[in-house]
Amino acid sequence: MSLIVQKYGGTSMGSPERIREVARRVQRFVKEGHRLVVVVSAMSGETNRLLGLAKELNPEGDPRELDVIASTGEQVSIGLLCIALHALGMKARSYTGFQVPIRTDAAYSKARILAIEEANIRRDLDAGHVVVVAGFQGIDEAGNITTLGRGGSDTTGVALAAALKADECQIYTDVDGVYTTDPRIVPEARRLDTVTFEEMLELASLGSKVLQIRSVEFAGKYQVKLRVLSSFTDVNSTDMGTLITFEEEENMEQAIISGIAFNRDEAKITVLGVPDRPGIAYAILGPVADANIDVDMIIQNASTEGMTDFSFTVHRNEFKRAMRILEGVKGEIKAKGVVGDDRIAKVSLVGIGMRTHAGIASQMFGCLAREGINIQMISTSEIKTSVVVDEKYMELAVRVLHKEFALDKAPDEEKMRP
Amino acid sequence: MSLIVQKYGGTSMGSPERIREVARRVQRFVKEGHRLVVVVSAMSGETNRLLGLAKELNPEGDPRELDVIASTGEQVSIGLLCIALHALGMKARSYTGFQVPIRTDAAYSKARILAIEEANIRRDLDAGHVVVVAGFQGIDEAGNITTLGRGGSDTTGVALAAALKADECQIYTDVDGVYTTDPRIVPEARRLDTVTFEEMLELASLGSKVLQIRSVEFAGKYQVKLRVLSSFTDVNSTDMGTLITFEEEENMEQAIISGIAFNRDEAKITVLGVPDRPGIAYAILGPVADANIDVDMIIQNASTEGMTDFSFTVHRNEFKRAMRILEGVKGEIKAKGVVGDDRIAKVSLVGIGMRTHAGIASQMFGCLAREGINIQMISTSEIKTSVVVDEKYMELAVRVLHKEFALDKAPDEEKMRP
Repeated sequence: MSLIVQKYGGTSMGSPERIREVARRVQRFVKEGHRLVVVVSAMSGETNRLLGLAKELNPEGDPRELDVIASTGEQVSIGLLCIALHALGMKARSYTGFQVPIRTDAAYSKARILAIEEANIRRDLDAGHVVVVAGFQGIDEAGNITTLGRGGSDTTGVALAAALKADECQIYTDVDGVYTTDPRIVPEARRLDTVTFEEMLELASLGSKVLQIRSVEFAGKYQVKLRVLSSFTDVNSTDMGTLITFEEEENMEQAIISGIAFNRDEAKITVLGVPDRPGIAYAILGPVADANIDVDMIIQNASTEGMTDFSFTVHRNEFKRAMRILEGVKGEIKAKGVVGDDRIAKVSLVGIGMRTHAGIASQMFGCLAREGINIQMISTSEIKTSVVVDEKYMELAVRVLHKEFALDKAPDEEKMRP
Repeated sequence: MSLIVQKYGGTSMGSPERIREVARRVQRFVKEGHRLVVVVSAMSGETNRLLGLAKELNPEGDPRELDVIASTGEQVSIGLLCIALHALGMKARSYTGFQVPIRTDAAYSKARILAIEEANIRRDLDAGHVVVVAGFQGIDEAGNITTLGRGGSDTTGVALAAALKADECQIYTDVDGVYTTDPRIVPEARRLDTVTFEEMLELASLGSKVLQIRSVEFAGKYQVKLRVLSSFTDVNSTDMGTLITFEEEENMEQAIISGIAFNRDEAKITVLGVPDRPGIAYAILGPVADANIDVDMIIQNASTEGMTDFSFTVHRNEFKRAMRILEGVKGEIKAKGVVGDDRIAKVSLVGIGMRTHAGIASQMFGCLAREGINIQMISTSEIKTSVVVDEKYMELAVRVLHKEFALDKAPDEEKMRP
């Protein structure tokens, strides 16, 4: 008898009929002899509806109160799923974040899980209950309600799987696995049976949006077996989606490029003409980090005459706040100016094989040049190469790169996979 | 500097614009030098929407999970009001039931408050915050979320006022006070400047719906000064609504009849032909009470040949469940049968003066007889006389009684009131 954590997203929980489907799927696994902990998101659209009400009152509402409001969406979902499970004759009990409890730090709207106390859940599992837990939320040391940020229900699922030492964490979503890129943009996009954690991390963080980045980090850290499946297949379907593997364990032959990620959630900010001296990066990014704004790409150009330009990207929602902060410290750091652009997109090639194959980056730049797409920023890591382009070129860039690297065709190695 | 607890109902919190109005009213009182604790209900329609979703999944959902779902409405309201207060430059912090905490028993959907821990609220008040508390909810000993039942936000308000020893508890609603009866049914209905607790208790419990019954009991028990006001008057209005007084303190002249209450929320159940023996009432009502069904009127007719009929009323929502319970115990108690009717209405004359004035009941029955309205059950107490009639006669009965007892005219004594 194995212990499975399943997580269902907002679309899977989008209506009473969809919730009934989720209940039937849970029932199937219980009948097969598994013990289940189910993590759910708010019904699709609900979080936006709630935050929209808050925005009507104040465009920049207090983060503590926004978390109080937003966390209700998942609370409704856990109650509804339990009622649907009871209607099938099953035993089920719901848990909010504070009831588990899921302890987090106090960073409202982007809290991190510090600890999960599992005693309550274990007691209910032992008593034969399906345990239904509200995703996306927790409680800080002072008893304040916190949320983990958008997509945080995935993190809740993985963290619970780690805490409970579950055999598998299944993330049900509206896609049936991880693709080489978004099929809505490239119809030839191909589903991967397996993908490594590192590739997944890049694909998720860069906009594939299948899994929330923190959940993948968590899964890697705690060695949680993670699987992405569709909640829109037949309840009895044996399709097993995409398994996220530990490269070290699987040791399989690998395609050079696994996929292409992209997003237009970012904005770039450039601090012009700062003195090129030790500590300047900290002087610029310190105040941004103190304001709890995450920075993604960071680029510093070579200096000329002791001056340099410093660029970085932040989430588009934080763009104005970050610009205000930099305007505030501009004098202090002796910068000539601060400019920003929130009409950009990031496109990234991702592949574990890049480590051992040279020339991938230049092949990428050549392909974009042939299409007349100007590259504004470049950033590379061991397994990815990212470029920032004008957002109007994003879809074109993804399509031509998908073709350039033949991602629509299964590599020979694919046949060797299980 | 006085401490005021204000409670705003669902209509007062019905939209972002209405919430802004509430914030402005709170601000006015703070500017006048008061310290404020504000209790809020869910936005109007929200609780029904949430419970409607649950009903789609199962018409009789598990009470624990229904409370998990229903309590989110107030949680959204506290966050929104805080954000509206912040937008006015005020300091405000929200509290859910578990955060106060408001400790209740474990009777889901109709929990009773056992204790309120005030330390957290006091600390925030001392720090200059307006404290905004979710009405209608609490937490039981095991950490489960409970709700106090419909209208329970009034109870939260009064209980907080009692715990904090507030100077006054102001209940804001969509009416501007307590009337002799519902003005929608009798346009001549008159607002009372003051009403005694006992009268209020009867008027509220019998369907005047201005205040929830338990809140009035609470206020009486803890001597909380309670005032009903409209949230639809101008923010700076000096209209002070209706003050609910302790008869003992005020010692004022009083009209014989204060008002007419009515409701059609009840159903009557009659157990036919039971042996008239000691313990029979307990044998009938014990199982009903065990199922947490509240019984209102109870009437036992004089016995003939050692047999008697036993009638009582329950809330219409509990009618089917109560009927099922009685069908189950019918054999055990040797009853000839059980019959019920959920198309009834209760109409009650209420007045502290009844204690010292004879003949009120017979004047009431005579008035109804002249209109051809048949009386099905009668129940009396010191300050009220209630009759059960076919629900189709309810409005007619209220109108003719209002006229019969000249409630549209202020009594002479009214002039002596402050």
